[in-house]
Amino acid sequence: METFPTNWGRWGADDQLGAVNLITGEVRARAAAEARTGRTVSLARVSAIAPLTGGPTASMTAGSTGVQTVMMFTGDAPMAMAEVMIMTPHHPEITHLDGLSHMVVDGQVYPGIARSASSGPAGVRHGAADAFGDGILTRGVLLDLAPGGALPEHHAVTADDLDAAARRGGVEVRSGDALIVRGGWERATAGDRDLPGMTSGAVRWMHDHEISLYGGDIGDARPPIAGDVPGALHRLALTRLAIPLLDGVNAEALAAVCAELDRYTFMLVVGAPRIAGTTGLPVNPIAVF
Amino acid sequence: METFPTNWGRWGADDQLGAVNLITGEVRARAAAEARTGRTVSLARVSAIAPLTGGPTASMTAGSTGVQTVMMFTGDAPMAMAEVMIMTPHHPEITHLDGLSHMVVDGQVYPGIARSASSGPAGVRHGAADAFGDGILTRGVLLDLAPGGALPEHHAVTADDLDAAARRGGVEVRSGDALIVRGGWERATAGDRDLPGMTSGAVRWMHDHEISLYGGDIGDARPPIAGDVPGALHRLALTRLAIPLLDGVNAEALAAVCAELDRYTFMLVVGAPRIAGTTGLPVNPIAVF
Amino acid sequence: METFPTNWGRWGADDQLGAVNLITGEVRARAAAEARTGRTVSLARVSAIAPLTGGPTASMTAGSTGVQTVMMFTGDAPMAMAEVMIMTPHHPEITHLDGLSHMVVDGQVYPGIARSASSGPAGVRHGAADAFGDGILTRGVLLDLAPGGALPEHHAVTADDLDAAARRGGVEVRSGDALIVRGGWERATAGDRDLPGMTSGAVRWMHDHEISLYGGDIGDARPPIAGDVPGALHRLALTRLAIPLLDGVNAEALAAVCAELDRYTFMLVVGAPRIAGTTGLPVNPIAVF
Amino acid sequence: METFPTNWGRWGADDQLGAVNLITGEVRARAAAEARTGRTVSLARVSAIAPLTGGPTASMTAGSTGVQTVMMFTGDAPMAMAEVMIMTPHHPEITHLDGLSHMVVDGQVYPGIARSASSGPAGVRHGAADAFGDGILTRGVLLDLAPGGALPEHHAVTADDLDAAARRGGVEVRSGDALIVRGGWERATAGDRDLPGMTSGAVRWMHDHEISLYGGDIGDARPPIAGDVPGALHRLALTRLAIPLLDGVNAEALAAVCAELDRYTFMLVVGAPRIAGTTGLPVNPIAVF
Repeated sequence: METFPTNWGRWGADDQLGAVNLITGEVRARAAAEARTGRTVSLARVSAIAPLTGGPTASMTAGSTGVQTVMMFTGDAPMAMAEVMIMTPHHPEITHLDGLSHMVVDGQVYPGIARSASSGPAGVRHGAADAFGDGILTRGVLLDLAPGGALPEHHAVTADDLDAAARRGGVEVRSGDALIVRGGWERATAGDRDLPGMTSGAVRWMHDHEISLYGGDIGDARPPIAGDVPGALHRLALTRLAIPLLDGVNAEALAAVCAELDRYTFMLVVGAPRIAGTTGLPVNPIAVF
Repeated sequence: METFPTNWGRWGADDQLGAVNLITGEVRARAAAEARTGRTVSLARVSAIAPLTGGPTASMTAGSTGVQTVMMFTGDAPMAMAEVMIMTPHHPEITHLDGLSHMVVDGQVYPGIARSASSGPAGVRHGAADAFGDGILTRGVLLDLAPGGALPEHHAVTADDLDAAARRGGVEVRSGDALIVRGGWERATAGDRDLPGMTSGAVRWMHDHEISLYGGDIGDARPPIAGDVPGALHRLALTRLAIPLLDGVNAEALAAVCAELDRYTFMLVVGAPRIAGTTGLPVNPIAVF
Repeated sequence: METFPTNWGRWGADDQLGAVNLITGEVRARAAAEARTGRTVSLARVSAIAPLTGGPTASMTAGSTGVQTVMMFTGDAPMAMAEVMIMTPHHPEITHLDGLSHMVVDGQVYPGIARSASSGPAGVRHGAADAFGDGILTRGVLLDLAPGGALPEHHAVTADDLDAAARRGGVEVRSGDALIVRGGWERATAGDRDLPGMTSGAVRWMHDHEISLYGGDIGDARPPIAGDVPGALHRLALTRLAIPLLDGVNAEALAAVCAELDRYTFMLVVGAPRIAGTTGLPVNPIAVF
Repeated sequence: METFPTNWGRWGADDQLGAVNLITGEVRARAAAEARTGRTVSLARVSAIAPLTGGPTASMTAGSTGVQTVMMFTGDAPMAMAEVMIMTPHHPEITHLDGLSHMVVDGQVYPGIARSASSGPAGVRHGAADAFGDGILTRGVLLDLAPGGALPEHHAVTADDLDAAARRGGVEVRSGDALIVRGGWERATAGDRDLPGMTSGAVRWMHDHEISLYGGDIGDARPPIAGDVPGALHRLALTRLAIPLLDGVNAEALAAVCAELDRYTFMLVVGAPRIAGTTGLPVNPIAVF
C-alpha cells in the first residue's frame, strides 16, 4: 500500500470535499450540456419499510430492513398522518452516500485527521456526508460491465474491465466525471452468494481518470479478493482518494435508458438531505438526459 | 369550499402523482434548457442532529430536533463509523417532501380514497412520498415576496402578492412549473411569532397557473388567517389540488443567486430518498442554473 | 354487556388504581406472611433483543422482537458499554403491565374519562402504568389450568375451570389476591394456532372474588370466542373492572415450584420501572415463598 | 490498585452473578423475616417521558430525557393506545441496574473475560443485567449519611461515614445484605454542582462487609476525588468486586419510612425486566417492611 496514491493534503489540510474538488466550472458546464430532454432516471433502489410495532397492531415477523417506521397517533379521526423513521443509513438496502469520515485507516480519516477529532458519540464534526449539502452536479458515465446480464460470482473487477466497458459504451472518461458502474448485482438481495468487487487496480484506474464520485451496484467483494487489499473501494477509494461513494446503487433502469438512447453519459444530480453530522445519508441520485 | 377547484379524478381514480402529471415532455425540455453553467443551489435548510444518548457520554440537555442519531459501537479501534438515525420527517427543522396522503380531508385522501385504505400502522399504501421516486425535474420559478427582507408578521399572502413578485422577477409562470416562494421566514426558528401564510386565493392562483410543485419558506399561517380556510396550503393545495409540497425550504441562497444573475428561473431537481411507504421524506431540492 | 358489573366510580371519579385498591393493610400483611424462605421465582419470560443495525456490523435478517438495541460508540478502547433500547412494551414477547388507560371503550377509559383527556401524542396523563409505581405487593394465587400440560387449542376458560384449579391447588381465593393463571400457552411462540382465552364468565368470577391483579399465560382468545364478548380480559377486566393485567406471563417455573412445595400461594411483588406517562411497562413480577 | 481486593475467580471463571452469590439461603430467610406488614416503598425515581415528535403534534422544545415515546396510530377511534419507547437505560434520570459487563477494565470485564467476548454490536453475551432475571431478594440496610439534609457538595464518602450511619440507624451490616445509601443528592437534578461520591475506602468497606448489592443516590464523585481511584464505585465495586449497582436510586421515601418506624432494615426485592443481552436495565427496587 506504500505505493498506492493518496489525495491526503492535495486540497489542503482541512478539506472536506475530496475528489469532488475535481468538479470545476468547466466540468459543470459539460455536465449541464448533457441535459437535453429533461428525462430523469433514478439510481436508487426502492427501500421497503417495516413497521416498528408488535402486539395487536402489526405482524409478528418481518425481515430485517434498513428503515422502520412508527405511524404516530395524531388524534381521533386524524387530519394528518405522519411517522417516525428509524434508519441505519449504511444498510445495504438503502442507496446512500458515504461521507469521507465513514471509514477509518490507522485511526485517521481523510485528509489525515484523527478519528477522535472527526467523529464521536455526538456525531461527525469533520468529513460528514452533509459536506456535499450544496448538491453534487457533474457528468455521469455509465460503465456497464455485464450488459443484459450479471458479472460472474466473486468476479474481481479490474482496470481492463472498466476500459472494456468504456469502449463498449463509446465513452471517454474525463476528469471530474462521476463513475457509475453496473454489474447486475445487489448486495441487499444477494443472499449468501459471493459478491464481485473492485480490485485495487480498478481503484487506481479511478485515480488515474480523476473520478470525482463513484456509484454502483458493485462494491467491495465478499469475501475479500485473495492477494489484494481487502475492501479496496471503501479502504482506498473512499479513504485514501477521498472519492465519495454512492453505495447500493441500482443501475438497471439507467442501463436500460442508456442502451435505448445508445448514450452512456448524462447529467448526474446528487442532493442528499442536509442533515448535518452523519457518516452517511440516504440519497436518490438522479440522472438527467 | 364547495366552489374551490379540485383535481380529484382529473388524472384517474388511482393516480398517485397529482399535479406532477402537469410536467410534460415539453415542460421537461424547457426545464433542461435552464441548465447552462451547471451551478447548483440547495433549497434545503441544514438540519442539526442531536445525539440520542445520556449518562456519561453526552450532554444532558438538548433542544428538540428533527433528527437524533446514535453512533454505533463497531468494535475497538473501529475501522468504520456509522450511526442509527431517528427522524420525524415532518419536523419543521427538516426540509421535506409531503406525500399526497399526508393530509386527510373528511376521512379521505387524494383522489378520493378512504384514509384507511391509504395508510395505517404498517405505513402508506397509496399516495406515499415515494410515488415521486423517479425524481421530479421541471422548471423552477422563484417568487421573492420580500426581496432583501421579510414579510410582515402574520402577513396573508394573496394572488396579487404572487403576481407582483413575478413582475419584479420578470418571469411568467407557466403550466408545469414548480413554484418556489421566499418570504424571509423559517418556521423552525420563528419561535412564538405569528407566521405569515398562504391564503386560499393564493392557492387558487397556483391552480390557475397549473403549478406542479410548491416549495417555500412560507407555509400555512399561524394562527390561521381570519375568514379564510385554515391551512390552505396543506388542506387545499396538497389535498384538493394534489400539489406536492416542499415544506421547510430555505430559499435564501437561491434568492441571492437569482438576484446576482437577475434570473428567476432554473432547472429544479428533486430526488427524495426512495424509501417506500411514508407520508413524507427528507429532501434536498437542487436548483441548477 | 349492560348487566356486566363495573367498577367505574367505585373508588372515586379520579381514581387511577382500580382493583389495586382492594389490597388493604390486612391483605398486605397476609401476603407478607407468605414470605418464609425468601425463595424467588420470576413470572417474566425472557425477551431476546435484536440489534437495530445493518450493513457491515450485523446480520441481515432477524425475527420480529419486542426490543431492539443499539450498542453505542463510547470511544476507542471503551471504558463502558451501554446501549439504546427501542421497545414496544405491549409486544407479546415482553412480559408487561397494562395500565388502566391502555384499552378504550366507547371513547372512554376507566373510570369514565374521555380518551382524549387520558392520553395523546405526548403520552398518558391519567391511568398510566406508572400509577402503580410504589409497587404492588399482595398474596398471589396460582391456578394451574393444565398441570403438566397445556389447555386444548382455543379452549374457552370458564369460571368452573378456575374453581376446579383452585380445588386442585387446595386454595381459597380471597379479596385482594392476585390471580396468576397457567394454561401452558405462550402467545409469543404460538405461531398461527388458535389461542385459548378467558370468557366473560371467568372475568365475572374475578370480580366476584375481588381479584386485585391478573397475570397469566392465558389472555384473550384468538379468534374471539363465539357468542361471548370479544377480548373479555382486556375489554372487561382491564377496562370495566380496572383490574391491571400482567400480559405475557411465563408461569412454568412458578408452577414447578408450587408443585414441588405443594403450595399455591405466595407473596407477589410487582415493581415496574417508574417511567411516567405510558400505557404499559415491561415488568418482572417476583413470587416469594 | 495492586492491593485492592478482587472477586475475579472467587465464584468460578464463568460466573455472572458476582457478589449476589453471597445471598445464601440463610440470608434470604433473614430477608423474608423482615416482611411483616407488607408495606412497600419504591427506591426508584420517577422518570418523565418526552414525546419523540415534531411538527404539528408536539412542542418544539424539550429537555433531554432518558425515555422518549411515540404514541402509535392504531386506527380511527382507537380501541387501544400503545407506544414505542426509546430509552437509554444508563441515563441518570432512570433508576437502573448496572450489569457486570457495563464497565471495562483494561479490556476485560468480570471475572476476567475479554470485553470483545462479553459484548459487541449485537448486545451482551456474558454479564448482562438479565443475569439477575430470577430476581434479587435479600435484606436491605439503609445508611442515611445526612438525615434530613444532604451531604456537602463534593463530599468524599469514607468507611467512617458508613460506620457512623450504621451506628445512627442501630444496624449491623451482615454478609449478603444489600447496601442502600442516602446522601440527599440526585445526579439527574444536580445541574453543574460538584457531586459527592464514594471513595475507594468506602468500596473496600463494602467488600469487608460482604455487600451483595449497592444502591444509592450517591454514586461516583464529579469531578473525581483527588488522590483516589477515579470512579471507585463503577471501576472497583462493579468491576473488581462484581457488586451490581442500582444507579440513580431515590432514597427519600425510604428514609422517611425508616425514620418513622425507627427501623433501617427491610426486605429488598429487585425484579428488572427480563430483557436479555443488555448492559443495564430500568428497575424499580421495592423495599418491603
